[in-house]
Amino acid sequence: MGMVPKDTPRIAVFGGRVSTGSLLDVAYDVGREIALRKAILYCGGMGGVMEAASRGAMENHGITVGILPTAAADSANPYITIPIVTGIGTARNYIIARSVDAAIAINGKYGTLSEIAYSLDFNKPVIGIQTWDIKGVIQAENATEALNKLWEICQWG
Amino acid sequence: MGMVPKDTPRIAVFGGRVSTGSLLDVAYDVGREIALRKAILYCGGMGGVMEAASRGAMENHGITVGILPTAAADSANPYITIPIVTGIGTARNYIIARSVDAAIAINGKYGTLSEIAYSLDFNKPVIGIQTWDIKGVIQAENATEALNKLWEICQWG
Amino acid sequence: MGMVPKDTPRIAVFGGRVSTGSLLDVAYDVGREIALRKAILYCGGMGGVMEAASRGAMENHGITVGILPTAAADSANPYITIPIVTGIGTARNYIIARSVDAAIAINGKYGTLSEIAYSLDFNKPVIGIQTWDIKGVIQAENATEALNKLWEICQWG
Amino acid sequence: MGMVPKDTPRIAVFGGRVSTGSLLDVAYDVGREIALRKAILYCGGMGGVMEAASRGAMENHGITVGILPTAAADSANPYITIPIVTGIGTARNYIIARSVDAAIAINGKYGTLSEIAYSLDFNKPVIGIQTWDIKGVIQAENATEALNKLWEICQWG
Repeated sequence: MGMVPKDTPRIAVFGGRVSTGSLLDVAYDVGREIALRKAILYCGGMGGVMEAASRGAMENHGITVGILPTAAADSANPYITIPIVTGIGTARNYIIARSVDAAIAINGKYGTLSEIAYSLDFNKPVIGIQTWDIKGVIQAENATEALNKLWEICQWG
Repeated sequence: MGMVPKDTPRIAVFGGRVSTGSLLDVAYDVGREIALRKAILYCGGMGGVMEAASRGAMENHGITVGILPTAAADSANPYITIPIVTGIGTARNYIIARSVDAAIAINGKYGTLSEIAYSLDFNKPVIGIQTWDIKGVIQAENATEALNKLWEICQWG
Repeated sequence: MGMVPKDTPRIAVFGGRVSTGSLLDVAYDVGREIALRKAILYCGGMGGVMEAASRGAMENHGITVGILPTAAADSANPYITIPIVTGIGTARNYIIARSVDAAIAINGKYGTLSEIAYSLDFNKPVIGIQTWDIKGVIQAENATEALNKLWEICQWG
Repeated sequence: MGMVPKDTPRIAVFGGRVSTGSLLDVAYDVGREIALRKAILYCGGMGGVMEAASRGAMENHGITVGILPTAAADSANPYITIPIVTGIGTARNYIIARSVDAAIAINGKYGTLSEIAYSLDFNKPVIGIQTWDIKGVIQAENATEALNKLWEICQWG
């Protein structure tokens, strides 16, 4: 870990706690791809899309940072390696958006919309998969397309 | 002031720092209407829409609460009577949405979008005037229509 | 309210939720003195010292701002006229300290200590009554002495 | 990294940006010991004590989490592997204290005092080295003594 290069990409995965079915498969694939490309996954640390993406990353030896809304570390999903226990509720959405280079939003409701809004306000690229159709969000069909677009936009090696 | 009733409506005005022209007139009218109806105006305390609405309220003897992103009280616009100096940047958008019963969004960019998203996530009514067309936002043409709709939805006396 | 002058002193009252007896009398007196001197009282909005001080201010026609840790406005004590609903727990201590010109700490435990620490870090004067004996805190015996010392230090008219 | 066990101890190092001399050696030793014992180091991510401790951990293959007050990842010291970019100023002290199992405070001024106060308020053990003499802080002379005491109190294996 001490050897994680400073320029390692940091990518947020946004999405709801209550997503189901094929959306969770997409989230898992996004997490796996992030890990395989040696980037760090940041998310809100809870269930649903966050958990599926974290699992995809952890099962592929990636680092998963969970920036939790709660005041208890054990509310993190089981695939979080680095819990950040904010205790500030969904005001933590601001911190996730601040912490990363770019974001991928999958489905989600108003919480996800606040994360998209902050990311765009901070001029961070946002890729969307079956999520809010907001000006500035770059739509993608699946995990591979999402990651390919991010790498191209961010010009990561 | 000690006699402000506990059930006084608290209404947020969201909108950008850089709005101009007729949008500022609309914001002024919204602030004036909030004051005339004896509600308390909450906003982000800065310029543009926030300043015009605060001016409309203050010039009609209303209370204006400015929840500032900065760490300096003197960054508030001149029409704020109660400054809240958060020092937490636009994470304060979360606190504005938490603090009110309902919100009126006027124009605005991604910062305003984050405020709308939080408000809807907290199940607060949001009236929009020339702003983001998000599911759940109730559109209005002008200040009077916006306030009338709010009073009807919230069933204020 | 629209006529509250911009240079109105803003004074925080810090102290625990569980203080009892004569400490609550001191808190009431501090709140009353703040109101009588036409300053605005800021506090955490909850019970104990915060409630007694708010009551002292409200019963003397003062303005009381309660910066709540919870996500619910109705958790404010009955003497708060302006609730700020942060939903960020005691991270709101930082915001209280940022918002005021000076503070008076009465009794209190570790939460009060964090508020004292932030205030001193921001170079705000802190008067203490039966509270933490921290370098930089100016000790006073009662409300009148506390307020007199504040007015002298801050050179308020 | 995916294999970091869930029960890995998380330890905060608190201390000022401007500490010098032998205090930085102590901070380095504390960071090194945290890494050698396979715990994760959390800190504020900036200079002084935070940087020396991070360097001690990173040079011994530890994980270093820097919870930054700023809105820019590149303000982290060079020994941070996981930056959390809060953009909320020293309100982030609350989040550091929330995130860890226990803390070690080295020297420091009022910012460090706020971190100690929060940690004790959350019932987290705090070991102090040449720092504030606050009720509840367990004093130690050096890194080894500090870590030994923590392991004993927390009953880590």
